[in-house]
Amino acid sequence: MVFGLTARPDMPEALALAAEVAALLGERGVPPVVDEAIAGAIDHNGDIAPLGAMEMDALIVVGGDGTILRALQHTSRPVFSINMGALGFLTEVPPEEWRQGIERLLGGDYVIDQRAKLETWIDGERQPDAVNEAVVHTTQISKMRYFDVRVDGNRAFSFRADGLIVATPTGSTCYAMSVGAPIVDPRAHAAIIVPIAPFKLAARPLVVADDSTVEVKLLEDKDALLVLDGQIKRQIGADSTLRFLLSDRTARFIRFDTDFYTRFRRKIARLMTVEEENGT
Amino acid sequence: MVFGLTARPDMPEALALAAEVAALLGERGVPPVVDEAIAGAIDHNGDIAPLGAMEMDALIVVGGDGTILRALQHTSRPVFSINMGALGFLTEVPPEEWRQGIERLLGGDYVIDQRAKLETWIDGERQPDAVNEAVVHTTQISKMRYFDVRVDGNRAFSFRADGLIVATPTGSTCYAMSVGAPIVDPRAHAAIIVPIAPFKLAARPLVVADDSTVEVKLLEDKDALLVLDGQIKRQIGADSTLRFLLSDRTARFIRFDTDFYTRFRRKIARLMTVEEENGT
Amino acid sequence: MVFGLTARPDMPEALALAAEVAALLGERGVPPVVDEAIAGAIDHNGDIAPLGAMEMDALIVVGGDGTILRALQHTSRPVFSINMGALGFLTEVPPEEWRQGIERLLGGDYVIDQRAKLETWIDGERQPDAVNEAVVHTTQISKMRYFDVRVDGNRAFSFRADGLIVATPTGSTCYAMSVGAPIVDPRAHAAIIVPIAPFKLAARPLVVADDSTVEVKLLEDKDALLVLDGQIKRQIGADSTLRFLLSDRTARFIRFDTDFYTRFRRKIARLMTVEEENGT
Amino acid sequence: MVFGLTARPDMPEALALAAEVAALLGERGVPPVVDEAIAGAIDHNGDIAPLGAMEMDALIVVGGDGTILRALQHTSRPVFSINMGALGFLTEVPPEEWRQGIERLLGGDYVIDQRAKLETWIDGERQPDAVNEAVVHTTQISKMRYFDVRVDGNRAFSFRADGLIVATPTGSTCYAMSVGAPIVDPRAHAAIIVPIAPFKLAARPLVVADDSTVEVKLLEDKDALLVLDGQIKRQIGADSTLRFLLSDRTARFIRFDTDFYTRFRRKIARLMTVEEENGT
Repeated sequence: MVFGLTARPDMPEALALAAEVAALLGERGVPPVVDEAIAGAIDHNGDIAPLGAMEMDALIVVGGDGTILRALQHTSRPVFSINMGALGFLTEVPPEEWRQGIERLLGGDYVIDQRAKLETWIDGERQPDAVNEAVVHTTQISKMRYFDVRVDGNRAFSFRADGLIVATPTGSTCYAMSVGAPIVDPRAHAAIIVPIAPFKLAARPLVVADDSTVEVKLLEDKDALLVLDGQIKRQIGADSTLRFLLSDRTARFIRFDTDFYTRFRRKIARLMTVEEENGT
Repeated sequence: MVFGLTARPDMPEALALAAEVAALLGERGVPPVVDEAIAGAIDHNGDIAPLGAMEMDALIVVGGDGTILRALQHTSRPVFSINMGALGFLTEVPPEEWRQGIERLLGGDYVIDQRAKLETWIDGERQPDAVNEAVVHTTQISKMRYFDVRVDGNRAFSFRADGLIVATPTGSTCYAMSVGAPIVDPRAHAAIIVPIAPFKLAARPLVVADDSTVEVKLLEDKDALLVLDGQIKRQIGADSTLRFLLSDRTARFIRFDTDFYTRFRRKIARLMTVEEENGT
Repeated sequence: MVFGLTARPDMPEALALAAEVAALLGERGVPPVVDEAIAGAIDHNGDIAPLGAMEMDALIVVGGDGTILRALQHTSRPVFSINMGALGFLTEVPPEEWRQGIERLLGGDYVIDQRAKLETWIDGERQPDAVNEAVVHTTQISKMRYFDVRVDGNRAFSFRADGLIVATPTGSTCYAMSVGAPIVDPRAHAAIIVPIAPFKLAARPLVVADDSTVEVKLLEDKDALLVLDGQIKRQIGADSTLRFLLSDRTARFIRFDTDFYTRFRRKIARLMTVEEENGT
Repeated sequence: MVFGLTARPDMPEALALAAEVAALLGERGVPPVVDEAIAGAIDHNGDIAPLGAMEMDALIVVGGDGTILRALQHTSRPVFSINMGALGFLTEVPPEEWRQGIERLLGGDYVIDQRAKLETWIDGERQPDAVNEAVVHTTQISKMRYFDVRVDGNRAFSFRADGLIVATPTGSTCYAMSVGAPIVDPRAHAAIIVPIAPFKLAARPLVVADDSTVEVKLLEDKDALLVLDGQIKRQIGADSTLRFLLSDRTARFIRFDTDFYTRFRRKIARLMTVEEENGT
């Protein structure tokens, strides 16, 4: 089995830990292919390749959710991650357990947690897929825009709002949760549409089938912004039409514990701990 | 094609309209089988049978949502309904359009809208299916109970609350909507679990897959009540376990307009009109 | 200074601690007047009196929120409480700090936190005041009732719902919080009205002035229940009118730390800890 | 009585109606002082002055909420408004009733509805007052910021969110309503703090007393934006401190119907009508 290796490039601790991971894998006779973006910053004796062109069976990521989300833009291989971020909701092991994690990985003692991605189109042009969510937002703070949402060609609702989120089940516990989305079990194969600050009393989150196409029209002559996974931004011109649907492509996570609910409860506990540390 | 006919028994206008329906069907040579519960109260010359034993291809219901929900406890045949209720969210035509409705029915000009029902078990004993929702509620007003919810054997969440609702997509626009559930497109084949007045800041609605089993444990030594579709009540003893899952059996509605969203928007408009008439 | 003493009567630990409190106060030459409801269950050599007829300057309560709320029905004296309950949001010190608490009390090292109570009337007849909230609820689970709410004679809103809560600022962090009420700083001198499970998309919590009178009419021919502080119940007949306003009488709490926000954040932290212990 | 007159400058219908108003007032012998910003665009024979320097007893505004909010930045005189906007929540009469409105104004047949404004400070420097609300928002869409909120020096809560709103009771039915604020009766003399898209499960709206000072710290090294009444923008540097409190200055509205609830219900009805027209 060939492993790729990447890390958060601007975080010395992440790079140092990546070097340790590379060393351990080297000792075991399977030196990883190292992401060229960090290859110069760590000691290693493996091959070097850009993330998008790595020949590998699985990718090891040392970093937080942002690092994982960026990596998932470049690979469809299963990802195993060691958390170096503040929350690390997508990651699998905390830094102090990195060694056991790598051992389980080498021993094949894991499962693959496959998650639907979201396909996104602007005026007929395909954009990168999102793992968590696509956000459409007014570019002018506190100036609402008018959104018209259709599902499979049928008008679902329209509202004036700051924006809206189209999220995967994975994303239901991220940004979408902040604006009142339900938690969606990944096995439900459904997408969620949630308005952001709707000036409409009848606005509610909407859950649609995995094979439904969601179309969003921006009805006024103003710009808006599309943000995918908090990482990729696209300016949207007036009168644009956006299209979203659950993708055939998946994000694959290497897990030692697949149960969605255990993970979710752990996430909430972590979030509450952070809240408590911050004095509520 | 053989039609059954029932109506809201305690509403003279509903019975009068049912008699008109029976007369029109008689004229067309297809006198309906009349529900024995109303047979004495209307003029007709068809057969009489109890709802649960009717030989028919489709059932015509004159009444509101309650009448339909009760009828659906007794038949798995497609239901066509003429609204005589206040809101009539499940009904298909308003009373003034009953004649066109019957004509379309006779002409075969309709579609069948098939909806998942909810299967309910108390301590291993099967209960009637619900079309909208199952409500579990403390019997003592303003005394919370402790609920433990598992999905497919995995602990999902637990909370102190007045109760919880497990709803079908059909039910997502009914009682569940009152306590913050998302709207669920029926094609999403998902069930929703929503706490009622949870004394827990982390409580959120949960959407689960159609083949998931939801198990609810009541952890304290107090009674609770199970209410199915607002119609059927069961006392639940202390330490009972409830089980819910989407059923193989469906409720089937005869529709002239299948689009879920058009129906939903019409429902909201009707609800808002009622609100406005009542002075908001 | 003369102290009264009461405790949760059905909890041996609370009674044992009350006896220790009585002994300490006896040692200091100020034996407490003991609530006759617990006098037989604890060793002490002070006077005995019913709660409602105690000659005292302050009342010491050993128990949880329920014990305090019951005691506040009988006295307008300042209350100092040692928590023996699960959450104890109204209490001041945990059991392990009872001795320091009593010492500060004897030393006069405390402040009085004065809180508005809620005055309640049914059809012109005054009911006991509530410290937290008054709940009006349908007696039939999952059968909504129609509520009409007026503020100072002006129609505010009406809705179909399971019930409604009228809460004081103190109650804003209790049951009202479960159904979406805002947190209200006690210095804001305002009351909150919140619907419980409103079947109305435009329903929102409402904050009214401290000198406003809230009138609730129950418009259908069905019974309802009024519950004050989760303790006192009154059956409400059809077509009754309820009246609520912030009372001139106050509940007074002896505090070592008056800051509302510190208390609130501590409460939330405690609630989250309980949630976490229960596996989220 | 001397009247000032202004109108939405970029809307021909508003200017035309303003000219009619000027003509009627001229006929009655009380030609208005006309805002110099529109003086060139309408026929009239009164004096001309900038809004901020008008000698007048009351200001007549022809336009929508934006026009009124802008005018209220320049005058503390009572404002009477004829609605030419889409919603016109702050306005008093629809365009077709402008003549009766002016007659009642001339006849003194009105009341003054006095509303608290919000005082705003950035790092000790006073900003214009807001009638509705102050919004603090991250400048980077879908990148949360960390907010720390203190009330009268006591830490109230902190959270990661897109932003927060501090609103007056008048603003409680505007933008704040979109993010879950309660409706606040203006007589309650309270301010509301509501997070926008908080990534925190324990986040709730907070109601504080009219003499409380709310302090908001932005804890990370990123910019933010302050927007007052959707009109006035200020860039906020990293580590800035914002201060908000209800102002001594008030906005004064000329009303023919002072009842807050009638106005609110009318507003909701108008909002629902607009929603319905837009197909929900």
